[in-house]
Amino acid sequence: MRHISHEQIKSFERLYRANMINSCSGYKSANIIGTLSAKGVENAAIFSSVIHMGSEPPVLGFVMRPATVPRNTYENIRNNRYYTINHVTENMVNRAHQTSAKYPDNISEFEETGLTPLYRADLPAPFVKESPLQLAMKFMEEIPIKVNGTILILGQILDIYCEEEMMHNDGFIQLSKFNVATINGLDGYAIPELKTRLSYARPKQKLEELK
Amino acid sequence: MRHISHEQIKSFERLYRANMINSCSGYKSANIIGTLSAKGVENAAIFSSVIHMGSEPPVLGFVMRPATVPRNTYENIRNNRYYTINHVTENMVNRAHQTSAKYPDNISEFEETGLTPLYRADLPAPFVKESPLQLAMKFMEEIPIKVNGTILILGQILDIYCEEEMMHNDGFIQLSKFNVATINGLDGYAIPELKTRLSYARPKQKLEELK
Repeated sequence: MRHISHEQIKSFERLYRANMINSCSGYKSANIIGTLSAKGVENAAIFSSVIHMGSEPPVLGFVMRPATVPRNTYENIRNNRYYTINHVTENMVNRAHQTSAKYPDNISEFEETGLTPLYRADLPAPFVKESPLQLAMKFMEEIPIKVNGTILILGQILDIYCEEEMMHNDGFIQLSKFNVATINGLDGYAIPELKTRLSYARPKQKLEELK
Repeated sequence: MRHISHEQIKSFERLYRANMINSCSGYKSANIIGTLSAKGVENAAIFSSVIHMGSEPPVLGFVMRPATVPRNTYENIRNNRYYTINHVTENMVNRAHQTSAKYPDNISEFEETGLTPLYRADLPAPFVKESPLQLAMKFMEEIPIKVNGTILILGQILDIYCEEEMMHNDGFIQLSKFNVATINGLDGYAIPELKTRLSYARPKQKLEELK
Protein backbone atom coordinates (compact mmCIF):
# COMPACT_ATOMS: atom_id res chain seq x y z
CA MET A 1 0.00 0.00 0.00
CA ARG A 2 1.10 3.55 -0.62
CA HIS A 3 1.68 5.60 2.53
CA ILE A 4 0.91 9.32 2.28
CA SER A 5 2.12 11.14 5.36
CA HIS A 6 0.77 14.24 7.03
CA GLU A 7 3.76 16.20 5.73
CA GLN A 8 3.17 15.06 2.16
CA ILE A 9 -0.52 15.98 2.35
CA LYS A 10 0.45 19.47 3.50
CA SER A 11 2.95 19.88 0.69
CA PHE A 12 0.62 18.84 -2.14
CA GLU A 13 -0.46 21.36 -4.75
CA ARG A 14 -3.97 22.63 -3.96
CA LEU A 15 -6.04 20.72 -6.56
CA TYR A 16 -4.10 17.49 -6.06
CA ARG A 17 -4.81 17.67 -2.34
CA ALA A 18 -8.47 18.55 -2.91
CA ASN A 19 -8.88 15.56 -5.26
CA MET A 20 -7.31 13.21 -2.73
CA ILE A 21 -8.93 14.46 0.46
CA ASN A 22 -12.35 14.69 -1.16
CA SER A 23 -12.04 11.01 -2.11
CA CYS A 24 -11.04 9.96 1.42
CA SER A 25 -14.40 9.95 3.18
CA GLY A 26 -15.93 7.42 0.78
CA TYR A 27 -18.95 7.72 -1.47
CA LYS A 28 -21.03 10.85 -1.04
CA SER A 29 -24.61 11.75 -1.80
CA ALA A 30 -25.46 13.57 -5.05
CA ASN A 31 -28.12 16.20 -4.53
CA ILE A 32 -29.32 19.41 -6.07
CA ILE A 33 -30.48 22.01 -3.58
CA GLY A 34 -33.19 24.27 -4.95
CA THR A 35 -33.79 27.76 -3.53
CA LEU A 36 -35.46 31.04 -4.44
CA SER A 37 -33.81 34.42 -4.00
CA ALA A 38 -35.51 37.50 -2.52
CA LYS A 39 -35.73 38.80 -6.10
CA GLY A 40 -37.40 35.60 -7.28
CA VAL A 41 -34.40 34.08 -9.07
CA GLU A 42 -34.48 30.27 -9.00
CA ASN A 43 -31.23 28.72 -7.84
CA ALA A 44 -30.02 25.13 -8.24
CA ALA A 45 -26.70 23.93 -6.87
CA ILE A 46 -25.15 20.49 -6.62
CA PHE A 47 -23.96 19.31 -3.21
CA SER A 48 -22.16 16.15 -2.17
CA SER A 49 -22.31 16.83 1.57
CA VAL A 50 -25.93 16.09 2.48
CA ILE A 51 -26.05 13.73 5.45
CA HIS A 52 -28.59 12.06 7.67
CA MET A 53 -28.53 13.63 11.14
CA GLY A 54 -31.52 11.91 12.73
CA SER A 55 -34.95 10.44 12.08
CA GLU A 56 -36.95 11.80 15.02
CA PRO A 57 -37.35 14.62 14.08
CA PRO A 58 -36.28 13.95 10.49
CA VAL A 59 -33.15 16.09 10.08
CA LEU A 60 -30.63 16.33 7.25
CA GLY A 61 -27.50 18.43 7.30
CA PHE A 62 -25.13 19.71 4.65
CA VAL A 63 -21.80 21.47 4.78
CA MET A 64 -21.02 24.64 2.91
CA ARG A 65 -18.05 26.81 2.40
CA PRO A 66 -19.47 30.34 2.58
CA ALA A 67 -16.70 31.86 0.49
CA THR A 68 -17.17 29.64 -2.56
CA VAL A 69 -19.59 28.87 -5.35
CA PRO A 70 -22.93 28.01 -3.83
CA ARG A 71 -23.14 31.17 -1.74
CA ASN A 72 -26.52 31.95 -3.28
CA THR A 73 -27.84 28.77 -1.74
CA TYR A 74 -26.80 29.96 1.70
CA GLU A 75 -28.23 33.45 1.34
CA ASN A 76 -31.48 32.15 -0.09
CA ILE A 77 -31.93 29.62 2.71
CA ARG A 78 -31.21 32.22 5.39
CA ASN A 79 -33.64 34.72 3.84
CA ASN A 80 -36.37 32.35 2.83
CA ARG A 81 -35.96 29.44 5.30
CA TYR A 82 -37.29 26.86 2.83
CA TYR A 83 -35.38 24.81 0.29
CA THR A 84 -35.56 21.53 -1.59
CA ILE A 85 -33.19 18.57 -1.80
CA ASN A 86 -33.42 16.58 -5.03
CA HIS A 87 -31.57 13.39 -5.91
CA VAL A 88 -29.40 13.24 -9.01
CA THR A 89 -29.83 10.27 -11.34
CA GLU A 90 -27.48 8.94 -14.01
CA ASN A 91 -29.13 10.87 -16.85
CA MET A 92 -29.02 14.14 -14.84
CA VAL A 93 -25.31 13.98 -13.98
CA ASN A 94 -24.06 16.48 -16.58
CA ARG A 95 -26.79 19.03 -15.89
CA ALA A 96 -26.29 18.64 -12.15
CA HIS A 97 -22.52 19.12 -12.40
CA GLN A 98 -23.00 22.20 -14.59
CA THR A 99 -24.91 23.91 -11.74
CA SER A 100 -21.54 24.26 -9.98
CA ALA A 101 -20.43 26.91 -12.53
CA LYS A 102 -20.27 30.45 -11.15
CA TYR A 103 -23.29 32.11 -12.72
CA PRO A 104 -24.18 35.73 -11.89
CA ASP A 105 -26.85 36.24 -9.19
CA ASN A 106 -29.57 37.13 -11.68
CA ILE A 107 -29.13 33.96 -13.72
CA SER A 108 -31.05 30.78 -12.90
CA GLU A 109 -29.09 27.55 -13.06
CA PHE A 110 -32.35 25.86 -14.03
CA GLU A 111 -32.47 27.81 -17.28
CA GLU A 112 -28.76 27.47 -17.95
CA THR A 113 -28.62 23.72 -17.43
CA GLY A 114 -32.02 22.63 -18.71
CA LEU A 115 -33.28 21.30 -15.39
CA THR A 116 -36.99 21.93 -14.79
CA PRO A 117 -38.20 23.88 -11.74
CA LEU A 118 -41.36 22.51 -10.16
CA TYR A 119 -43.49 24.03 -7.39
CA ARG A 120 -45.53 21.96 -4.99
CA ALA A 121 -48.15 23.13 -2.49
CA ASP A 122 -47.04 26.55 -1.26
CA LEU A 123 -43.36 25.83 -0.65
CA PRO A 124 -41.39 28.92 -1.73
CA ALA A 125 -38.56 26.97 -3.37
CA PRO A 126 -38.33 25.03 -6.63
CA PHE A 127 -38.02 21.25 -6.78
CA VAL A 128 -36.15 19.60 -9.64
CA LYS A 129 -38.84 17.92 -11.71
CA GLU A 130 -36.47 15.31 -13.20
CA SER A 131 -35.56 13.95 -9.77
CA PRO A 132 -37.25 10.71 -8.56
CA LEU A 133 -36.84 11.64 -4.88
CA GLN A 134 -37.53 15.23 -3.82
CA LEU A 135 -37.61 16.64 -0.31
CA ALA A 136 -39.23 19.81 1.01
CA MET A 137 -36.94 21.23 3.70
CA LYS A 138 -37.22 23.87 6.42
CA PHE A 139 -34.10 25.53 7.81
CA MET A 140 -33.50 24.75 11.50
CA GLU A 141 -30.06 25.95 12.51
CA GLU A 142 -26.62 26.79 11.21
CA ILE A 143 -23.57 25.57 13.05
CA PRO A 144 -20.26 27.32 12.40
CA ILE A 145 -17.32 24.91 12.14
CA LYS A 146 -14.41 26.77 13.67
CA VAL A 147 -11.57 24.55 12.49
CA ASN A 148 -12.03 25.58 8.86
CA GLY A 149 -14.73 28.23 8.61
CA THR A 150 -17.35 26.00 7.00
CA ILE A 151 -20.98 25.92 8.09
CA LEU A 152 -23.20 22.96 8.84
CA ILE A 153 -26.78 23.74 7.81
CA LEU A 154 -29.47 21.68 9.53
CA GLY A 155 -32.95 21.38 8.14
CA GLN A 156 -36.08 19.41 8.87
CA ILE A 157 -37.70 17.22 6.20
CA LEU A 158 -41.26 18.48 5.77
CA ASP A 159 -42.47 16.42 2.82
CA ILE A 160 -41.11 13.55 0.76
CA TYR A 161 -42.02 13.09 -2.91
CA CYS A 162 -40.87 9.72 -4.13
CA GLU A 163 -41.41 7.47 -7.13
CA GLU A 164 -43.63 4.61 -5.97
CA GLU A 165 -41.32 1.90 -7.37
CA MET A 166 -38.48 2.96 -5.05
CA MET A 167 -40.52 2.38 -1.89
CA HIS A 168 -40.41 -0.91 -0.02
CA ASN A 169 -43.05 -2.13 2.42
CA ASP A 170 -40.85 -1.44 5.42
CA GLY A 171 -40.16 2.20 4.55
CA PHE A 172 -36.83 1.58 2.79
CA ILE A 173 -36.33 3.73 -0.32
CA GLN A 174 -34.23 1.87 -2.89
CA LEU A 175 -32.10 4.50 -4.61
CA SER A 176 -30.80 2.09 -7.25
CA LYS A 177 -34.29 1.65 -8.74
CA PHE A 178 -33.89 4.99 -10.54
CA ASN A 179 -30.12 4.92 -10.98
CA VAL A 180 -29.46 7.54 -8.31
CA ALA A 181 -25.83 8.67 -8.50
CA THR A 182 -23.15 8.89 -5.85
CA ILE A 183 -20.09 11.14 -5.89
CA ASN A 184 -16.47 10.05 -5.53
CA GLY A 185 -14.15 12.97 -4.84
CA LEU A 186 -14.79 16.33 -6.46
CA ASP A 187 -15.95 15.21 -9.88
CA GLY A 188 -16.44 11.45 -10.10
CA TYR A 189 -19.98 10.19 -10.63
CA ALA A 190 -20.76 6.54 -9.95
CA ILE A 191 -23.95 4.49 -10.14
CA PRO A 192 -24.44 1.89 -7.41
CA GLU A 193 -26.14 -1.46 -7.67
CA LEU A 194 -27.84 -2.73 -4.51
CA LYS A 195 -26.24 -6.03 -3.47
CA THR A 196 -27.94 -6.86 -0.19
CA ARG A 197 -29.94 -5.67 2.78
CA LEU A 198 -28.82 -7.23 6.03
CA SER A 199 -30.82 -8.03 9.16
CA TYR A 200 -30.27 -6.21 12.48
CA ALA A 201 -26.99 -7.51 13.89
CA ARG A 202 -26.88 -9.33 17.24
CA PRO A 203 -23.93 -11.05 18.94
CA LYS A 204 -23.53 -14.73 17.99
CA GLN A 205 -26.39 -14.60 15.50
CA LYS A 206 -26.01 -15.16 11.79
CA LEU A 207 -26.99 -12.22 9.57
CA GLU A 208 -29.84 -12.77 7.16
CA GLU A 209 -30.54 -11.10 3.86
CA LEU A 210 -33.73 -9.05 3.93
CA LYS A 211 -35.90 -9.72 0.92
CA MET B 1 -45.10 10.29 -7.29
CA ARG B 2 -46.05 9.36 -3.78
CA HIS B 3 -46.39 12.30 -1.39
CA ILE B 4 -45.48 11.63 2.24
CA SER B 5 -46.44 14.58 4.43
CA HIS B 6 -44.88 15.86 7.60
CA GLU B 7 -47.85 14.50 9.59
CA GLN B 8 -47.48 11.04 8.04
CA ILE B 9 -43.74 10.98 8.79
CA LYS B 10 -44.50 11.81 12.42
CA SER B 11 -47.13 9.08 12.69
CA PHE B 12 -44.99 6.27 11.25
CA GLU B 13 -43.92 3.36 13.42
CA ARG B 14 -40.32 3.87 14.60
CA LEU B 15 -38.48 1.39 12.36
CA TYR B 16 -40.52 2.31 9.29
CA ARG B 17 -39.62 5.96 9.79
CA ALA B 18 -35.96 5.14 10.43
CA ASN B 19 -35.80 3.09 7.22
CA MET B 20 -37.34 5.91 5.19
CA ILE B 21 -35.51 8.88 6.69
CA ASN B 22 -32.17 7.09 6.59
CA SER B 23 -32.68 6.54 2.85
CA CYS B 24 -33.57 10.19 2.20
CA SER B 25 -30.13 11.79 2.20
CA GLY B 26 -28.82 9.59 -0.62
CA TYR B 27 -25.91 7.22 -0.69
CA LYS B 28 -23.68 7.22 2.37
CA SER B 29 -20.10 6.22 3.00
CA ALA B 30 -19.34 2.76 4.45
CA ASN B 31 -16.52 2.91 6.98
CA ILE B 32 -15.26 0.99 9.96
CA ILE B 33 -13.86 3.16 12.73
CA GLY B 34 -11.12 1.44 14.71
CA THR B 35 -10.31 2.46 18.30
CA LEU B 36 -8.53 1.16 21.37
CA SER B 37 -10.02 1.32 24.89
CA ALA B 38 -8.12 2.41 28.00
CA LYS B 39 -8.01 -1.31 28.94
CA GLY B 40 -6.56 -2.22 25.54
CA VAL B 41 -9.69 -3.71 24.00
CA GLU B 42 -9.77 -3.24 20.21
CA ASN B 43 -13.02 -1.80 18.95
CA ALA B 44 -14.41 -1.79 15.41
CA ALA B 45 -17.71 -0.15 14.50
CA ILE B 46 -19.39 0.51 11.19
CA PHE B 47 -20.47 4.08 10.41
CA SER B 48 -22.36 5.52 7.46
CA SER B 49 -22.01 9.16 8.50
CA VAL B 50 -18.38 9.97 7.70
CA ILE B 51 -18.22 13.17 5.63
CA HIS B 52 -15.64 15.43 4.07
CA MET B 53 -15.47 18.71 5.97
CA GLY B 54 -12.50 20.34 4.27
CA SER B 55 -9.18 19.69 2.59
CA GLU B 56 -6.99 22.39 4.14
CA PRO B 57 -6.49 21.17 6.82
CA PRO B 58 -7.75 17.71 5.84
CA VAL B 59 -10.81 17.21 8.08
CA LEU B 60 -13.44 14.48 8.17
CA GLY B 61 -16.48 14.45 10.41
CA PHE B 62 -18.91 11.81 11.54
CA VAL B 63 -22.15 11.89 13.47
CA MET B 64 -22.88 9.76 16.47
CA ARG B 65 -25.78 9.15 18.70
CA PRO B 66 -24.21 8.91 22.17
CA ALA B 67 -27.01 6.79 23.58
CA THR B 68 -26.78 3.95 21.07
CA VAL B 69 -24.53 1.15 19.93
CA PRO B 70 -21.15 2.62 19.07
CA ARG B 71 -20.70 4.38 22.40
CA ASN B 72 -17.37 2.61 22.86
CA THR B 73 -16.12 4.41 19.78
CA TYR B 74 -16.94 7.76 21.35
CA GLU B 75 -15.37 6.98 24.72
CA ASN B 76 -12.25 5.55 23.13
CA ILE B 77 -11.78 8.57 20.87
CA ARG B 78 -12.25 10.99 23.74
CA ASN B 79 -9.80 9.08 25.96
CA ASN B 80 -7.23 8.20 23.38
CA ARG B 81 -7.64 10.97 20.74
CA TYR B 82 -6.55 8.74 17.85
CA TYR B 83 -8.66 6.49 15.67
CA THR B 84 -8.72 4.95 12.21
CA ILE B 85 -11.23 5.15 9.36
CA ASN B 86 -11.25 2.14 7.05
CA HIS B 87 -13.28 1.67 3.89
CA VAL B 88 -15.61 -1.31 3.54
CA THR B 89 -15.42 -3.34 0.34
CA GLU B 90 -17.96 -5.76 -1.14
CA ASN B 91 -16.35 -8.83 0.41
CA MET B 92 -16.22 -7.18 3.87
CA VAL B 93 -19.89 -6.14 3.98
CA ASN B 94 -21.17 -8.91 6.26
CA ARG B 95 -18.28 -8.61 8.73
CA ALA B 96 -18.62 -4.82 8.73
CA HIS B 97 -22.37 -4.96 9.37
CA GLN B 98 -21.86 -7.47 12.19
CA THR B 99 -19.74 -4.91 14.09
CA SER B 100 -23.00 -3.04 14.79
CA ALA B 101 -24.12 -5.80 17.20
CA LYS B 102 -24.07 -4.79 20.87
CA TYR B 103 -21.06 -6.64 22.22
CA PRO B 104 -19.97 -6.24 25.86
CA ASP B 105 -17.14 -3.73 26.51
CA ASN B 106 -14.51 -6.41 27.02
CA ILE B 107 -15.18 -8.07 23.68
CA SER B 108 -13.36 -7.03 20.51
CA GLU B 109 -15.48 -6.76 17.36
CA PHE B 110 -12.35 -7.71 15.43
CA GLU B 111 -12.29 -11.14 17.06
CA GLU B 112 -16.04 -11.62 16.84
CA THR B 113 -16.33 -10.72 13.17
CA GLY B 114 -13.06 -12.02 11.78
CA LEU B 115 -11.68 -8.64 10.72
CA THR B 116 -7.93 -8.28 11.23
CA PRO B 117 -6.48 -5.50 13.42
CA LEU B 118 -3.31 -3.93 12.05
CA TYR B 119 -0.99 -1.42 13.74
CA ARG B 120 1.07 1.08 11.80
CA ALA B 121 3.87 3.33 13.09
CA ASP B 122 2.96 4.26 16.66
CA LEU B 123 -0.71 5.12 16.19
CA PRO B 124 -2.59 3.80 19.26
CA ALA B 125 -5.57 2.51 17.29
CA PRO B 126 -6.07 -0.53 15.06
CA PHE B 127 -6.54 -0.28 11.30
CA VAL B 128 -8.62 -2.89 9.47
CA LYS B 129 -6.12 -4.89 7.46
CA GLU B 130 -8.67 -6.00 4.84
CA SER B 131 -9.46 -2.40 3.86
CA PRO B 132 -7.87 -0.94 0.68
CA LEU B 133 -8.05 2.64 2.00
CA GLN B 134 -7.13 3.30 5.62
CA LEU B 135 -6.83 6.64 7.38
CA ALA B 136 -5.00 7.56 10.58
CA MET B 137 -7.11 10.19 12.37
CA LYS B 138 -6.58 12.60 15.25
CA PHE B 139 -9.54 13.96 17.19
CA MET B 140 -10.00 17.74 16.82
CA GLU B 141 -13.33 18.75 18.28
CA GLU B 142 -16.79 17.51 19.16
CA ILE B 143 -19.80 19.62 18.28
CA PRO B 144 -23.06 18.93 20.11
CA ILE B 145 -26.11 19.07 17.82
CA LYS B 146 -28.85 20.52 19.98
CA VAL B 147 -31.84 19.67 17.80
CA ASN B 148 -31.53 15.96 18.42
CA GLY B 149 -28.72 15.32 20.91
CA THR B 150 -26.28 13.84 18.41
CA ILE B 151 -22.61 14.76 18.26
CA LEU B 152 -20.48 15.70 15.26
CA ILE B 153 -16.93 14.46 15.77
CA LEU B 154 -14.26 16.25 13.76
CA GLY B 155 -10.86 14.74 13.15
CA GLN B 156 -7.79 15.53 11.11
CA ILE B 157 -6.40 13.05 8.60
CA LEU B 158 -2.81 12.32 9.64
CA ASP B 159 -1.85 9.55 7.24
CA ILE B 160 -3.43 7.85 4.25
CA TYR B 161 -2.70 4.21 3.37
CA CYS B 162 -4.07 3.39 -0.04
CA GLU B 163 -3.78 0.60 -2.60
CA GLU B 164 -1.64 1.94 -5.44
CA GLU B 165 -4.14 0.93 -8.14
CA MET B 166 -6.81 3.26 -6.73
CA MET B 167 -4.63 6.36 -7.10
CA HIS B 168 -4.80 8.56 -10.18
CA ASN B 169 -2.10 10.99 -11.28
CA ASP B 170 -4.12 14.02 -10.18
CA GLY B 171 -4.71 12.82 -6.60
CA PHE B 172 -8.14 11.27 -7.24
CA ILE B 173 -8.68 7.98 -5.40
CA GLN B 174 -10.99 5.71 -7.39
CA LEU B 175 -13.07 3.83 -4.84
CA SER B 176 -14.62 1.51 -7.44
CA LYS B 177 -11.23 -0.10 -8.19
CA PHE B 178 -11.55 -2.20 -5.03
CA ASN B 179 -15.35 -2.45 -4.96
CA VAL B 180 -15.75 -0.05 -2.06
CA ALA B 181 -19.34 -0.18 -0.77
CA THR B 182 -21.88 2.56 -0.16
CA ILE B 183 -24.83 2.41 2.22
CA ASN B 184 -28.48 3.03 1.34
CA GLY B 185 -30.62 3.54 4.43
CA LEU B 186 -29.93 1.53 7.57
CA ASP B 187 -28.99 -1.81 6.08
CA GLY B 188 -28.67 -1.65 2.29
CA TYR B 189 -25.21 -2.20 0.80
CA ALA B 190 -24.57 -1.18 -2.79
CA ILE B 191 -21.48 -1.30 -5.01
CA PRO B 192 -20.97 1.66 -7.35
CA GLU B 193 -19.44 1.65 -10.79
CA LEU B 194 -17.64 4.85 -11.82
CA LYS B 195 -19.34 6.30 -14.92
CA THR B 196 -17.51 9.56 -15.51
CA ARG B 197 -15.33 12.30 -14.12
CA LEU B 198 -16.35 15.75 -15.31
CA SER B 199 -14.23 18.86 -15.88
CA TYR B 200 -14.54 21.97 -13.72
CA ALA B 201 -17.81 23.66 -14.70
CA ARG B 202 -17.83 27.17 -16.16
CA PRO B 203 -20.77 29.16 -17.57
CA LYS B 204 -21.37 28.60 -21.30
CA GLN B 205 -18.63 26.01 -21.56
CA LYS B 206 -19.24 22.38 -22.46
CA LEU B 207 -18.24 19.84 -19.80
CA GLU B 208 -15.54 17.37 -20.74
CA GLU B 209 -14.92 13.90 -19.44
CA LEU B 210 -11.65 13.62 -17.55
CA LYS B 211 -9.66 10.60 -18.61
